[in-house]
Amino acid sequence: MTDVVSIDPRTGAAVETVTTETTPDQVDALVAAAAAAAPGLEALGRTGRAELLDTLADALEARREDVVAVADRETGLGPGRLNGELTRTCFQLRLFGEVLREGSYVEATVDHAGDTPMGPRPDLRRMLVPLGPVAVFGASNFPLAFSVPGGDTAAALAAGNPVVIKAHGSHPATSQLCAEILAAAATKAGAPDATTGIVHGLAAGAALVAAPQIRAVGFTGSLTGGKALMEIIERRPEPIPFFGELASLNPVLVTPAAAAERAAALGTGLVGSFTLGGGQFCTKPGLTLLPAGPDGDAVLDAMAGAVRDAAAPVLLNAGIAQGYRTLSERLRGLPGVTTVATGTTGEDTGGFTATPLLLAANGLPDGLTEECFGPLGVVVRYDGADELFALLAALPSSLTATVHRGTGETELPGAVSAALRPRAGRILFDGFPTGVAVSWAQHHGGPWPSTNTQHTSVGTTAIRRFLRPVTWQDAPAELLPTELVDGPIDLPRRIDGVLVLP
Amino acid sequence: MTDVVSIDPRTGAAVETVTTETTPDQVDALVAAAAAAAPGLEALGRTGRAELLDTLADALEARREDVVAVADRETGLGPGRLNGELTRTCFQLRLFGEVLREGSYVEATVDHAGDTPMGPRPDLRRMLVPLGPVAVFGASNFPLAFSVPGGDTAAALAAGNPVVIKAHGSHPATSQLCAEILAAAATKAGAPDATTGIVHGLAAGAALVAAPQIRAVGFTGSLTGGKALMEIIERRPEPIPFFGELASLNPVLVTPAAAAERAAALGTGLVGSFTLGGGQFCTKPGLTLLPAGPDGDAVLDAMAGAVRDAAAPVLLNAGIAQGYRTLSERLRGLPGVTTVATGTTGEDTGGFTATPLLLAANGLPDGLTEECFGPLGVVVRYDGADELFALLAALPSSLTATVHRGTGETELPGAVSAALRPRAGRILFDGFPTGVAVSWAQHHGGPWPSTNTQHTSVGTTAIRRFLRPVTWQDAPAELLPTELVDGPIDLPRRIDGVLVLP
Repeated sequence: MTDVVSIDPRTGAAVETVTTETTPDQVDALVAAAAAAAPGLEALGRTGRAELLDTLADALEARREDVVAVADRETGLGPGRLNGELTRTCFQLRLFGEVLREGSYVEATVDHAGDTPMGPRPDLRRMLVPLGPVAVFGASNFPLAFSVPGGDTAAALAAGNPVVIKAHGSHPATSQLCAEILAAAATKAGAPDATTGIVHGLAAGAALVAAPQIRAVGFTGSLTGGKALMEIIERRPEPIPFFGELASLNPVLVTPAAAAERAAALGTGLVGSFTLGGGQFCTKPGLTLLPAGPDGDAVLDAMAGAVRDAAAPVLLNAGIAQGYRTLSERLRGLPGVTTVATGTTGEDTGGFTATPLLLAANGLPDGLTEECFGPLGVVVRYDGADELFALLAALPSSLTATVHRGTGETELPGAVSAALRPRAGRILFDGFPTGVAVSWAQHHGGPWPSTNTQHTSVGTTAIRRFLRPVTWQDAPAELLPTELVDGPIDLPRRIDGVLVLP
Repeated sequence: MTDVVSIDPRTGAAVETVTTETTPDQVDALVAAAAAAAPGLEALGRTGRAELLDTLADALEARREDVVAVADRETGLGPGRLNGELTRTCFQLRLFGEVLREGSYVEATVDHAGDTPMGPRPDLRRMLVPLGPVAVFGASNFPLAFSVPGGDTAAALAAGNPVVIKAHGSHPATSQLCAEILAAAATKAGAPDATTGIVHGLAAGAALVAAPQIRAVGFTGSLTGGKALMEIIERRPEPIPFFGELASLNPVLVTPAAAAERAAALGTGLVGSFTLGGGQFCTKPGLTLLPAGPDGDAVLDAMAGAVRDAAAPVLLNAGIAQGYRTLSERLRGLPGVTTVATGTTGEDTGGFTATPLLLAANGLPDGLTEECFGPLGVVVRYDGADELFALLAALPSSLTATVHRGTGETELPGAVSAALRPRAGRILFDGFPTGVAVSWAQHHGGPWPSTNTQHTSVGTTAIRRFLRPVTWQDAPAELLPTELVDGPIDLPRRIDGVLVLP
C-alpha cells in the first residue's frame, strides 16, 4: 500500500497522508460500480440530471471555505484565484443544467417513413445517447475547474455518464475532499451510488484507462502524459475515444500600428498574461511576435520592465519546477536566443519557486516553439509582412492565436487571422488568451498538439465528447426515448429535415 | 511505372490498363494543388458549394450509361444495383446541397459581451470551418456510393474541403472515369482546379495519408486496412483525424413470437439480406439468433431452403474471393459449428465466384463473430431469456442490431434493444439492416470495431467529420465569417444561448 501524500509547494514539505494508492482490484470494483450506475443516471432524464448538477454546485459552494483552504495549501495558487475557480466550476455545472433543459444537445432528428428517389425509406429517428462510464484525469493547474470537479466531469455527468476520476498527485487532499462532496451531493440528488468515483496513483490511472467498461477518457495535461494514455488505449481490445488537451504555444502578434499606439499597456498586459497563475495556463501566450523598430522596442522594453518587477511564483509541484528549470535553460541555450529580463528569484524556502524570464529569439530556431510551463515568455521580431507570414507559417497549432491591432485596423489583422485560423481553435483580437470564458460559443481546442480531436473541453459543446448517435429504425413508439416520440415536446428537433422549436 | 489494370471479376481476366500507379512526387503535387484550392472552395460559400454539388450530381447522371457499364464490367454487381447506386450518390450530393443551404451544420453561435458570475465576458462567436484537404479511400463494395463519388467525397466537399481520392484497385477504370467527370463538373461550376483529385496504388495511398497538408482521412474498408492507415497517421508529426468504417457483424434477433408468426418470410428475408450484393455489405446480417424449438426450426428450415436456391455470386476481386474461402473454412471448422445448407456453386469460369453458406453454431465459440465478407450466414439458437441475454452480452459492437418481434410485442424487444444499444449505431425493428437510407436521421457507425469514432459516414451529419470549430473573440465585424455577423441571416443560430430560426 503506497501512501498518497499532500505536499505544500511553498515549502516542499509533506503535510499529510491523504489515503493510499488505489489498487487494481479497487479500480475494477469502482469501474464495475460505475457501469452499474449508468442506467439509473440516464433514467434521471434531462431534468433530473440538471437538478443533479445544480445540487453538486450547491454542495461545492456550501463547502467553499474548506475547499479553498485545502486547495491553497496544496497548490499555492492563493485564495483569490481559487475562489474564482470554485465559482467557475459551479457556474459550469449549472450551465450544463441549462444545456440539458434546453435539449438541443441531443440532436433529436425524426425522418418519417416516405418515398425517396431510391424507393421507400423507413422511419428513422436519431439522437445522442450517453457513452457509459467515463474516466476523467484531473489537471494539476486547475485544481477546481479542470480536476475532480471541472469541465470534463460536468460534461460527462450532464451527458448521462458515471465518472471515475483520476486524482492529480499535486492536490490529492483537494481531490479527495471534492470527491466526497460530489458523492454525497449526488446521493442527495437521487443519483445512483457510484455516479462519481475517484482513484489515486499513476498505476490506478493506467488501470482505469485499460478497464473494459470505461467508454471514453477526458484528459487535460502534458503531451507526454497524453501519449502514454493513448498507447494504453491502442492496446485495448476495443479502443475508445480519448479527448486530450495537451500542449499549446498560443502565439500573439502585435501589429506595427498596435505597437505604435499602446506599447506600455501591451508590455504589461502580455507579461501579466504569461505569468498568470505562475505561467501554468494552457492558454499562456508563450510566443510574441513584435515588429522591428522603435515601436516594437518600446513594447519589448515595457515587457522587460514588467518581468523585472514580477514576483517569483510558487509552481504546482516539484516536477513542474524542475521541468521549468530544465526547459528554460534549454531555450536560453538555443542559437540566437538572448535573455532580455529576469524577474525576482524567490527566497530559498524549499518550495517550488520559479524565476520569471523574458527571452528574445532571432527567428524560430528548432525547439523554440515547445510549450514551456511556467513564467517564461519569448519574443521574436519581424521586419515587414513577408518575414511575419514566414514566421506564422512555421508555428505549431495552438489552442489560441491573438492579434493586437491598431484602432480600426483590419487589413493586416485580417490576413494574419486567416493565416492563423488553420492552427488555432480561438482567435482573439486585442485581448489576452489566458481567460477562457465558459459559454455557448466558447471553443477550447485546436489541431495537434493542442488537442487530438475536433472537440472542445470548455463551453457547452464539450458535452458532445461524451455522447454518441444512435438511430432507431421503425421502432414502436413505446421503445423510443421520449425525445424521439411524435407529438409536442420540450426541445428543438429536426423533423423531416426542418428544424422545429418547441 | 507499375500499370493499374482493370480486371473482370466474372472471368478473372485483365481487360484493360487504366493508367499507371501514382508516384510519390505526383501525390505530393496533387496534395499541394488541393491545399492551394482550399481557400477558393471555401470562398464559394454555402450557396456556391451547394451549386457545385448539384453540378457534380448532374454530371454523373449525364454519364450514367457509361459509368454503369464500366462499373458493371469491373465489379460484376449488375446494372440494376449500379444504377441504384448512381441514383443514391447523386441524391446524396444534392442532399448535402440542402444541408448547406439550410445552414444549421455550421453551428453558428454568438455570445455577446456581458457580465457573468466570473466577471465580464468578451464577445465570442463560434462556427465550424473546413479542415483542409481530405483524403478519401474508395471502398471496393460500393463503386459509386462509397468510392470516388460517394458519402465521404460528398461530405468533405460540402464542408468546403478539397478531396484527394485513393481509387480502389478493384475498380480503377470506374474510379478514373468518375474522377474525370467530377473534375470537369467542378471546373464548370466555378470551383478551383484540384478541388478533386485521384491517386492509384497502395503506395500512393500511404503517401497520401502521410502528406502534411492532408488534414483528415475518410476510409471505408477492412479492419486490417484501417489499422495500417492509423499506424501511418500515428507516425505523422501532426496526427490527423481518421474516420474509419471497419468491420461489423450486424446481429439479428428473432423473438419466439416473431418466429411463430412468420417463419417463412423471416427465412427468405434473412438470406436475401445476407446474400445481397454477394454478401459484401458492411451491414450484412452475419449472425442470427433464433429461438430453440419448432418455431425457430421453421425459420432455420426456410433459411436453408433459400440458401440452397441461392445463386453463386461473383465477388469483387480475387482477394475477397480467397478471403471468403479461407474464413468460411475456418468458421466451418470451429467447435460446434455445422453446415446447414450450401448454395449453388458457380461454373468454373475463372471468375471470383463464391458458394453461399448457412452455418449453425452451438453458442459463440472463439472466432465465430469475426466479420465474413461474402454470402455466409451463421445461426445460433437460444433457449430462454437467460441464454439469449448471455449471448447478446458476448457480441462485438456493430453498425446495426435488428430485432424481429411478434405483432405488438414490446417487452422482450425493449429489453433486447436496451441491451444492444451500447453495441450498435442503428437499431432496427422488423426489417433487414442492409439498406442504409441517406437522410437527416440516419446513423452509420458504432463502437469499435464497426467504426473508430462517434461520427457517421452516412446521412447529413457525416459532414461534421470534416469540420472543426473556431471561436472568434472580440473580432471586428469585418473580419468575421458572414454567418457570425449580427443582423438578419439565412441560417439558424444560437444567440446568447437561445436558438433562433432565420
